[in-house]
Amino acid sequence: MNHHRRYFARPVSSLWLAVLLLWANACLAATDPLPSWNDGPTKQSIESFVKKVTTQGSPDFVPPEQRIATFDNDGTLWAEQPVYSEFFFVMDQVKAQLPQHPEWKTTEPFKSALAGDLMGLAASGEKGAAELIAATHAGMTTDEFAQRVNAWVATARHPKTHRVFTEMVYQPMLELLHYLRDNGFKTYIVSGGGQDFIRAWAEAVYGVPPEQVIGSEGELTYQSRDGHPVLIKQAKIALVDDHGGKPVGIERFIGRKPILAFGNSDGDQQMLEWTMSGAGTRFAGLVHHTDDVREFAYDRQSPVGKLDKALDEATAKGWAVVDMKNDWKVIFPPEKAAKK
Amino acid sequence: MNHHRRYFARPVSSLWLAVLLLWANACLAATDPLPSWNDGPTKQSIESFVKKVTTQGSPDFVPPEQRIATFDNDGTLWAEQPVYSEFFFVMDQVKAQLPQHPEWKTTEPFKSALAGDLMGLAASGEKGAAELIAATHAGMTTDEFAQRVNAWVATARHPKTHRVFTEMVYQPMLELLHYLRDNGFKTYIVSGGGQDFIRAWAEAVYGVPPEQVIGSEGELTYQSRDGHPVLIKQAKIALVDDHGGKPVGIERFIGRKPILAFGNSDGDQQMLEWTMSGAGTRFAGLVHHTDDVREFAYDRQSPVGKLDKALDEATAKGWAVVDMKNDWKVIFPPEKAAKK
Repeated sequence: MNHHRRYFARPVSSLWLAVLLLWANACLAATDPLPSWNDGPTKQSIESFVKKVTTQGSPDFVPPEQRIATFDNDGTLWAEQPVYSEFFFVMDQVKAQLPQHPEWKTTEPFKSALAGDLMGLAASGEKGAAELIAATHAGMTTDEFAQRVNAWVATARHPKTHRVFTEMVYQPMLELLHYLRDNGFKTYIVSGGGQDFIRAWAEAVYGVPPEQVIGSEGELTYQSRDGHPVLIKQAKIALVDDHGGKPVGIERFIGRKPILAFGNSDGDQQMLEWTMSGAGTRFAGLVHHTDDVREFAYDRQSPVGKLDKALDEATAKGWAVVDMKNDWKVIFPPEKAAKK
Repeated sequence: MNHHRRYFARPVSSLWLAVLLLWANACLAATDPLPSWNDGPTKQSIESFVKKVTTQGSPDFVPPEQRIATFDNDGTLWAEQPVYSEFFFVMDQVKAQLPQHPEWKTTEPFKSALAGDLMGLAASGEKGAAELIAATHAGMTTDEFAQRVNAWVATARHPKTHRVFTEMVYQPMLELLHYLRDNGFKTYIVSGGGQDFIRAWAEAVYGVPPEQVIGSEGELTYQSRDGHPVLIKQAKIALVDDHGGKPVGIERFIGRKPILAFGNSDGDQQMLEWTMSGAGTRFAGLVHHTDDVREFAYDRQSPVGKLDKALDEATAKGWAVVDMKNDWKVIFPPEKAAKK
């Protein structure tokens, strides 16, 4: 204290004090890697875990090459209500192809897709879903598909917020991805959604390169088209990257067990179990959608992103459960893309 | 020349000259990233390519995240004669399991595997291969399989050189892998061999982490065993990562087109075509086995690692062809593991 007294022994103008305080606050904010997270046990548990596994000489230290973190996408990194964003892409693709397929106006599942009738789509079951995937995710080259997705994400907007879908991402999770990478983690997306769909924009939006995006995927065939090699997307499914398919996808693509995983629904339960089954300090987290004002509130009864068994397991095993309403200062990042 | 005369105007002892020359040579060696490659057009073409794509401001500059390099394994990074090393693993696994399967003594393909009868194995065809894979690569957890591979690579030896198989790797290619990584490349293995087999030792031997090893692979199933989650290897094949399967594996795992690829056989032809089909400066290389003294000499007629169509295409398109006999100063690294 004497040390400070010496510096403030002379009268200091209140203006200078205010400047100093602002500067101190700015420094604190600059050093907080998770500024959109409210202080509390969830934020503390994340920071404590990262500190443990990155402190050399600590019994919990994990070498950088083993710092694998896996994140579900829908409902964990971006919004999934009223229905997965990829469904809107499918509906828009069906609309765009209608001139070549006038019969779709009267045939299910296309009729429901054109009407945006989610209940009608659900009624068409797995057969309907397979037909929609075949019509919108297959029969074209990988490049052509990526172009379609890029054109769509640049313009399509969420029906409730009217934001582009790539701005329906969660700001606190973007900060978490950055924070982990700054601490030597390799961040992966492990999604039940289409791998090629997410890869088209994940690097720009999440900073996650295509080789770190694992998702559901169809078979590919290699062929020559006018002397130029192409890969054609097939309707046949190669991996359903959901539930038990998530550990399968992780092992197939990464070949290492993650030490941190984040999900939000029962489809992520097996990924979290798999992550926690290894030796040493590990972290499993669930995003719990509790904010019906700033986003959506849903869990056990929701047809999309149902969180029931995984919530029970999280409670029983002490996994972190993010309470969106109370743990997050903001939900979405500031809007960049101008509205139409 | 005047400049030099000034420095050597006074008499210099021949000892000092020798020291200077040694020092100069050491400096050259230290700065040569490919010391086991003889100077010549092949080495020059590699170095010229790397310089082009890494020089900022150059029209050929490629940003680091797009510097993807893919390497075949058998015959490109390690020896594949008289037969793929994984075949020796299969034979040894069959022998180890014989007490539980006495019927194998008289049943094909196991009888031929036990006798090391490659012609007999070949005669059993795809059905025989599938039975051997099922018996040695399936029905166990991914961890159990990795343990078996690790135990095997630690002790099994090549029938001709009596080296452990992980020392049957090509020193010049190890240097190339390091050189590329030092220049911001991400190096991948894209092998027709078993993905899990290679992953068990690729990081220690090649510095390639498991998530950068793509190979042929079987299906996996997720289940709980005594309350502990495991992944069980299935006999059903998920990807044959050879010929057209190589671009498929590359797209599935990486989602970017490589800018450099190296192979040695017709099984690599499509990977090289795929690599060269992108825009900008690219590099395709074939390792041509021309050294029957230090390794093996084979190409168009070889049942293992046949190089025929890809050699014609390399000639027609000007791809680099490594002449092992003349381009490489040494083939294998110095021996480390003591012989039994």
